[in-house]
Amino acid sequence: MSATRTRLSPDRRREQLLDLGVGLLAGRRLEDLSIDALADEAGISRGLLYHYFAGKREFHLAVLRRMADQVVAITAPPSEGDPLAQMVTSLTAYVDFVAANRIAYVSFVRAAAAGDEEFRRIYEDARAALTDRIFDHAGRDVLEGLGFVDGPALRLLVRGWSAMVEDTVLSWLEDDRGIGRDDLLEMLAQALVGVAGVVSTTR
Amino acid sequence: MSATRTRLSPDRRREQLLDLGVGLLAGRRLEDLSIDALADEAGISRGLLYHYFAGKREFHLAVLRRMADQVVAITAPPSEGDPLAQMVTSLTAYVDFVAANRIAYVSFVRAAAAGDEEFRRIYEDARAALTDRIFDHAGRDVLEGLGFVDGPALRLLVRGWSAMVEDTVLSWLEDDRGIGRDDLLEMLAQALVGVAGVVSTTR
Repeated sequence: MSATRTRLSPDRRREQLLDLGVGLLAGRRLEDLSIDALADEAGISRGLLYHYFAGKREFHLAVLRRMADQVVAITAPPSEGDPLAQMVTSLTAYVDFVAANRIAYVSFVRAAAAGDEEFRRIYEDARAALTDRIFDHAGRDVLEGLGFVDGPALRLLVRGWSAMVEDTVLSWLEDDRGIGRDDLLEMLAQALVGVAGVVSTTR
Repeated sequence: MSATRTRLSPDRRREQLLDLGVGLLAGRRLEDLSIDALADEAGISRGLLYHYFAGKREFHLAVLRRMADQVVAITAPPSEGDPLAQMVTSLTAYVDFVAANRIAYVSFVRAAAAGDEEFRRIYEDARAALTDRIFDHAGRDVLEGLGFVDGPALRLLVRGWSAMVEDTVLSWLEDDRGIGRDDLLEMLAQALVGVAGVVSTTR
């Protein structure tokens, strides 16, 4: 656990501290995440932590940015396989992450929604990365495999679908309504197909 | 404009004052909506207003409740016609309301998302009313006309679709990406069909 035991570059040590911060957030809200708690967890002094983070707000912003990067990284779809299966794999990682970090994730969404510009930018950048990816690299195969054509209308709808996924997953975690995780994942992936299919029917 | 000119019951006058409050919110954020501004607009004294609202927070809650009720009322789908056309009519009223009251609507969504329990309840009640309606009365015809069967999975997805509509409309109002209003409405209505169609394919 201690960040002092191993010799690391300052950048690498900072990343390690941020991972600890993300871990601490899994069980508490953002406003309850203090530099003191991180100092305890990392086994290093509060004074040393101020070497890495100028203050509580900078610490919070850095932890949220780290969490957002993690969400984007772990949900990267595999580069091969059936397009719909790729999407289900990506959604599985997302649902499992949100389930394991629900309190943190909800406080992230709330901080962004409440209108703080910097929180909002981190959130919007992550969402853009998540949805733009569907139009890049492996994602292109998914889209093309499903017969959809890139354009402003499809991008707007895919963005809307990502809002649907977030809302649906948070709602399902609060009350699963007897719906199993695999059925949820399958429905959300199919919903993208249904939503994206709209573009070809209306234009 | 003046609420003092006509003889009204206290309840009716309160409603009239709330309509003025909703109107004032069209051009300013919730935190900038003061009882003073309402007193000016209504042409009555600040003291008299405290007869209707105990304080700023009660006034804000009542104005948001009134706005939520208005959204639910004006978006009621017509009781007749092609199911998809009914949905487009309802969505048209929603998009036009959000366009005309964008600042107010965004501050409503943000107040709810930021986690204030009372704001949140007003917002969630309105969303529940909007989506449950799809399963009642005229809405049933829409669903049945489209061949979908009521159940927890469909309700969860329709709720998710409503999050998609809200996000997409707010995003489109910020930047229309060259997409016309009629195309947007058609796409959102079709997206409900696409999303709801998932239930029959997966279960």
